[in-house]
Amino acid sequence: MVGISVDGESMKRRDILTAGIGLAGSAAVAAPAVAQSTPELRWRLHSAFPRNLDALYGAAELFARLVAEATDNRFQIEVAAAPSGEPAALLDSVGAGTLEMAYSAAYYEVGRDPTYALATAIPFGLNARQQNAWMLQGGALDLFNEIFAKSKLYALPGGNTGTQMGGWFRREVKSVADLQGLRFRIAGLGAQVLAKLGVATQTMPSADLYAALEGKTLDAAEWIGPYDDEKLGLNKVAPFYYYPGFWEGGSVMHFWFNAQKWAELPKAYRAIAAAAAASVNGDLQAKYDARNPAALRRLVGGGAQLRPFPQEVMEAALKAANDIYADIGAKNPDFKRIHDALKAFRNEEYLWFQVAEYTYDNFMIRARARG
Amino acid sequence: MVGISVDGESMKRRDILTAGIGLAGSAAVAAPAVAQSTPELRWRLHSAFPRNLDALYGAAELFARLVAEATDNRFQIEVAAAPSGEPAALLDSVGAGTLEMAYSAAYYEVGRDPTYALATAIPFGLNARQQNAWMLQGGALDLFNEIFAKSKLYALPGGNTGTQMGGWFRREVKSVADLQGLRFRIAGLGAQVLAKLGVATQTMPSADLYAALEGKTLDAAEWIGPYDDEKLGLNKVAPFYYYPGFWEGGSVMHFWFNAQKWAELPKAYRAIAAAAAASVNGDLQAKYDARNPAALRRLVGGGAQLRPFPQEVMEAALKAANDIYADIGAKNPDFKRIHDALKAFRNEEYLWFQVAEYTYDNFMIRARARG
Repeated sequence: MVGISVDGESMKRRDILTAGIGLAGSAAVAAPAVAQSTPELRWRLHSAFPRNLDALYGAAELFARLVAEATDNRFQIEVAAAPSGEPAALLDSVGAGTLEMAYSAAYYEVGRDPTYALATAIPFGLNARQQNAWMLQGGALDLFNEIFAKSKLYALPGGNTGTQMGGWFRREVKSVADLQGLRFRIAGLGAQVLAKLGVATQTMPSADLYAALEGKTLDAAEWIGPYDDEKLGLNKVAPFYYYPGFWEGGSVMHFWFNAQKWAELPKAYRAIAAAAAASVNGDLQAKYDARNPAALRRLVGGGAQLRPFPQEVMEAALKAANDIYADIGAKNPDFKRIHDALKAFRNEEYLWFQVAEYTYDNFMIRARARG
Repeated sequence: MVGISVDGESMKRRDILTAGIGLAGSAAVAAPAVAQSTPELRWRLHSAFPRNLDALYGAAELFARLVAEATDNRFQIEVAAAPSGEPAALLDSVGAGTLEMAYSAAYYEVGRDPTYALATAIPFGLNARQQNAWMLQGGALDLFNEIFAKSKLYALPGGNTGTQMGGWFRREVKSVADLQGLRFRIAGLGAQVLAKLGVATQTMPSADLYAALEGKTLDAAEWIGPYDDEKLGLNKVAPFYYYPGFWEGGSVMHFWFNAQKWAELPKAYRAIAAAAAASVNGDLQAKYDARNPAALRRLVGGGAQLRPFPQEVMEAALKAANDIYADIGAKNPDFKRIHDALKAFRNEEYLWFQVAEYTYDNFMIRARARG
């Protein structure tokens, strides 16, 4: 047992009493491991999200605060928005070790490897609770970290948005035919699915969306959900607010670490960082769940017209998604292996969710509608 | 400020120095705040759940492991099953400070104050995500800790089961009339609701349920969900497995601390304990979500027949629940105040959940059913 640490951090009553006054000499020899375990560290974390997305940006700030509090400020992580705003460059910096950490979404890295998308969300993937269960108790986190390790990255889940909205449309979508040529701002695998249905997909920074929709150079744009979408004001220029965002049933954010720096952290710091990430993982979902309802009310009060995607569109998109997954899987064994695991897990999850969870929510929603 | 605690568990370095032993001489002077922040502590946690409920029991073990890892084993918490198996006695011990911590469900404490039930689950309350959102981002945790403080307790959420099942019935329930005189093992506010519908409710240890159902001295029994229920083998003696457990839409477990011992913990230890509890909060839900599907499959393979509660039963139970809440609230201002807050939150939550979440799950469930 350790008596007094080298840097004087701790002292046990028993040791003080038995060691008496002769303390500063021999007793101090015993404890080098303790000093080593709580070094002073200053790390930097860049977020893929700008400050004005306060829920997502705040998730990284909360992580840094929890780590600092748990280490008496010995392990400090300075949070900033990524200077380039380019998620791929961000993870490149972390992999290269010029930056210790990032907060970003894996599906931004489909250019690196489409397998990354499976770690965040794919069209018709898992809902938020199921994605968490798959990550934390279904073996998926380990599968992904084997993939991420190829880029010298290690990741921990750090928040979920829940099912996102389908975005803002200037005109109603009543059929698959209405999607032909529709200029829609959407990225990632969701864009690939909609492109198969004839949508002219494109990416565009969120700050440009209002002007593009108002100027009619864009027909529609998806973002996140009510709480974040409200900040963009798109209800004024594209009033039809579609749901669900079937390409994001429950999108996971991740804390990204340089893999070597992670491995070199003292065990206690790894435990603290993992617990802090897990705290944020629950907290971000809670924040979205707590704040989305009032934002939705305000948006509807401000002219947003809620519309479900037509069943025909959902069905066609599901078919297109499955075709795309088959194409990617034929070329990418990692994608196929982990996507097969996701499908098997999803099949089991919805077997169970349709019984207790869904039936309960169904009753509660109907009871609410009756008042 | 307390220097040496009453039971000798902790000692602040500053006090040691000023107490006059003069130990360690001048070298020790530089680091008083650090010594104060990482004392060696050994606490005990008793769980309301027996070891064979490995998910619930394991939640407290995981908490203790995370805290130990994050503190380099300086803060160790020994986990054991509560000797008496009596939840109220358990929290009494924590309140009295003869035990530092417990892991238990607040709704076991309806005898102490029915307000406690609102912290776990009430009939027709929030689902698991909504309950988390209310606790963590809706202000409810602070409201509850004001109530718990009256019993010298402080609590943090530490896991959710999700929507539970409605239990095992020897005969089918096709109407409210079928509930008359039904001898049903169920506790808490759920029991009060069903008693209003004519059910002869009773409590009974889980170990006795099989014999009671087989010997026909009991007609039905509710427990938790597939993963835990499977261990009891009730499918063999009461084959009708009803859903949803409308009295537990998403039941929260809590880590309970003696309030004074919590307040006296160094800030870093409080941060670590809170992050560990938050980790477990997510992990237990993930565990249930990951393990319930296969257990449900095995139960159905073993003869369980899934049945939804009839709409008539659900409606009658909802009305009975609202009557009971009005009765309790008329006598208990704390209950009324926090229940009103829960209802307002629930109304907002289902406004939002019915849009993106529910529509997504609905589509996925139907797509799965078609193959």
